[in-house]
Amino acid sequence: MSVRVGICGLGTVGGGTVNVLRRNADLCAARAGTDIQIVQIGARSVNPDCDSDKIPVVADVFAVATNPDVDIVVELIGGSTVARELVLAAIASGKHVVTANKALIAEHGNEIFAAAREQGVTVAFEAAVAGGIPIIKALRDGLSANRIEWVAGIINGTGNFILTEMRDKGRDFADVLAEAQALGYAEADPTFDVEGIDAAHKLVILAALAFGMPLRFDAVYTEGISEIAPEDVVYAEELGYRIKHLGIARQREQGVELRVHPTLVPEECLIAQVNGVMNAVMVKGDAVGPTLYYGAGAGAEPTASAVVADIIEIARASVAQSPSSLVPASPLGVAVDALRDPGVLAIADTVSAHYLRVSALDKPGVLSQLATIMSARGISIEALIQKEPRPGEDRVPLIMLTNETLESNLRAALTEIEALESVVGSVVHIRKDGLDGQT
Amino acid sequence: MSVRVGICGLGTVGGGTVNVLRRNADLCAARAGTDIQIVQIGARSVNPDCDSDKIPVVADVFAVATNPDVDIVVELIGGSTVARELVLAAIASGKHVVTANKALIAEHGNEIFAAAREQGVTVAFEAAVAGGIPIIKALRDGLSANRIEWVAGIINGTGNFILTEMRDKGRDFADVLAEAQALGYAEADPTFDVEGIDAAHKLVILAALAFGMPLRFDAVYTEGISEIAPEDVVYAEELGYRIKHLGIARQREQGVELRVHPTLVPEECLIAQVNGVMNAVMVKGDAVGPTLYYGAGAGAEPTASAVVADIIEIARASVAQSPSSLVPASPLGVAVDALRDPGVLAIADTVSAHYLRVSALDKPGVLSQLATIMSARGISIEALIQKEPRPGEDRVPLIMLTNETLESNLRAALTEIEALESVVGSVVHIRKDGLDGQT
Repeated sequence: MSVRVGICGLGTVGGGTVNVLRRNADLCAARAGTDIQIVQIGARSVNPDCDSDKIPVVADVFAVATNPDVDIVVELIGGSTVARELVLAAIASGKHVVTANKALIAEHGNEIFAAAREQGVTVAFEAAVAGGIPIIKALRDGLSANRIEWVAGIINGTGNFILTEMRDKGRDFADVLAEAQALGYAEADPTFDVEGIDAAHKLVILAALAFGMPLRFDAVYTEGISEIAPEDVVYAEELGYRIKHLGIARQREQGVELRVHPTLVPEECLIAQVNGVMNAVMVKGDAVGPTLYYGAGAGAEPTASAVVADIIEIARASVAQSPSSLVPASPLGVAVDALRDPGVLAIADTVSAHYLRVSALDKPGVLSQLATIMSARGISIEALIQKEPRPGEDRVPLIMLTNETLESNLRAALTEIEALESVVGSVVHIRKDGLDGQT
Repeated sequence: MSVRVGICGLGTVGGGTVNVLRRNADLCAARAGTDIQIVQIGARSVNPDCDSDKIPVVADVFAVATNPDVDIVVELIGGSTVARELVLAAIASGKHVVTANKALIAEHGNEIFAAAREQGVTVAFEAAVAGGIPIIKALRDGLSANRIEWVAGIINGTGNFILTEMRDKGRDFADVLAEAQALGYAEADPTFDVEGIDAAHKLVILAALAFGMPLRFDAVYTEGISEIAPEDVVYAEELGYRIKHLGIARQREQGVELRVHPTLVPEECLIAQVNGVMNAVMVKGDAVGPTLYYGAGAGAEPTASAVVADIIEIARASVAQSPSSLVPASPLGVAVDALRDPGVLAIADTVSAHYLRVSALDKPGVLSQLATIMSARGISIEALIQKEPRPGEDRVPLIMLTNETLESNLRAALTEIEALESVVGSVVHIRKDGLDGQT
């Protein structure tokens, strides 16, 4: 008996998946306990980087999704419109589904998982978050004994590449972005990556697993890195921090925080040392404490590594008599009907420490005015850098780190500060996260 | 229906396991799809740090192992003699087994897994390696699509604590060891930790999973950290390296290398930044590339996190009709009869780069003699530090980094070097590993 796989989409990840399944066929069979056979590929064209020789290729991906000879449908076409229809069609035909599609899971996961449960099939999506890093399985299986306190991840390689270059070489955002586009790390339209939408998709999936909650893409706060100035990278460094674009999901008493934004992280934290296009996710559990998972977050073969691991998991299950019961009751680690929504906090109701950069006129009393406004709101200044004005300039930058405070409180203070006559323009503020002092 | 657990041993890990199972009972039940009930504890005394209230405690652990009301036996008594009998008795009684016992698995795993297969039960041991880090499941499930090229880990917290202190504070080995003993990080007899035996146990388990091979504890090369001198830590640093006590398992064409020894690691590698008692394991797969897993390698609750995750995994399987087929065909990720032994290379047949420290008389021509010996054996000197002798001393240290060479070739060169009249005493040599240039 062999497990029969149909692959929809033969782009970068589809090609990588075919290559890994073929190259490591012996290993995969030993680990699955059964041969894994690619019986059909749905793609409009073949991929020259992929050895699809002797595998029937059809143009219509829906023919693969409903092919009676296919046990597992692998959705690698991307996007969330056709992909949704395709996955629902596969489920309706009683197929297990493996997908690398974060947008699909983040936006339509609730519907898809409900349909899968109805049909007694499973949906696996290890490749949807952090590429080859097995973070989905770590949360679902490896850390299942823990009440997860928070998850914080560098889950977009393009953004991390840009921030790494900005820091290492003192370059500015636009300059590095152009290079990233030339290198193929960033899309022609880089919005998804640099504005945090891609990271938000992934964060929503991590949060659902960590907290046993439905996918709440509607509720993530998202802030990109396009406003990060080289001087903020330098000041952060002076204060002992690096700026990373983090997705953070944290359980609070009042609900869950779901936010993607540039974040100052203590430089001695391992995650601060994760550079270039690499990804890393920290998970803090009540029993295990802090853990970290690191690896390639994208690319043909790293992503294929995760896709094929999901195929092997389902194949292992199929070797037993009752496939649908062999994989966890729900793709999110708890049964769909056991999911509960703790509520997602609005960004105004979240708590963070902050990095602030105020551009102030170089005259007496400004610092005192700032300190008075902050103090009246219970915000303390934990660190401060004030530089002399450069020759010929009448403005000085004032850089501050605050203690933890409610975001709405900080914003009110910023409004008052920006109204001061001695303050020029708006205040730059970047959230800071000590990651519980964990390295 | 609930899954009934019997716990043998109520020391640090046993107490932690009871506490985590009770504190997170709701979560564990949701994730397992069934209640998990501790029906009996086998221990000679209760643990004051543990809430075992209302759980029947018996002194005889074998009564737990054969109790007809127990589905899963959790072996936390340690050691490898009684523990072996206990686990075999539990298996013979048709129980699934969860253990945190690395010595047991490394030394008797082959026998135990064969017995488990015979009985159609499973043996889970996530807690045996790197405490709370889910590295067993990462290798078995998350990276199952990969041909693993190598695994390299900081898998003994005591050793890492000592090396971290030596580097940070310039202290010497004996001094830090005494402190570690006072802090409870090191045992009164520290041999297992500092001489690498504990790490060797864990490495053998990682290698079995990575390469689908039997447990070969008989074949690991083991070298401790007790000979590391503070000056070597300093010279390594000057050359851009940190000394870490690594367990390394690497697939070579001729067989597998299994070795535990102090290792120079490039300081820009993430694993070089892992400090104190923390553990980390790097895994390089052919598809995924380098990945890293980091967390607490010991302690009551981090270890319990892994033990309870294993219990949940077996409980999830038990919810289905065919428990024994729900867990992977073999505890090592492939069926017991699919394991193959690629052969373990003797240390003389392994390949490494090396750090060498030669104590030489301060007279002309020494360096030339050394270089001639090395060059004749095809060993090149990649970096060199030669310091002026201190006032009143007639010896100078010569520090060298070599290229990769067969260990037997290096040892032959060292014998010749040590025979030189101008060389005093034996040459210090520490292996170096660039970890494929991966950070």
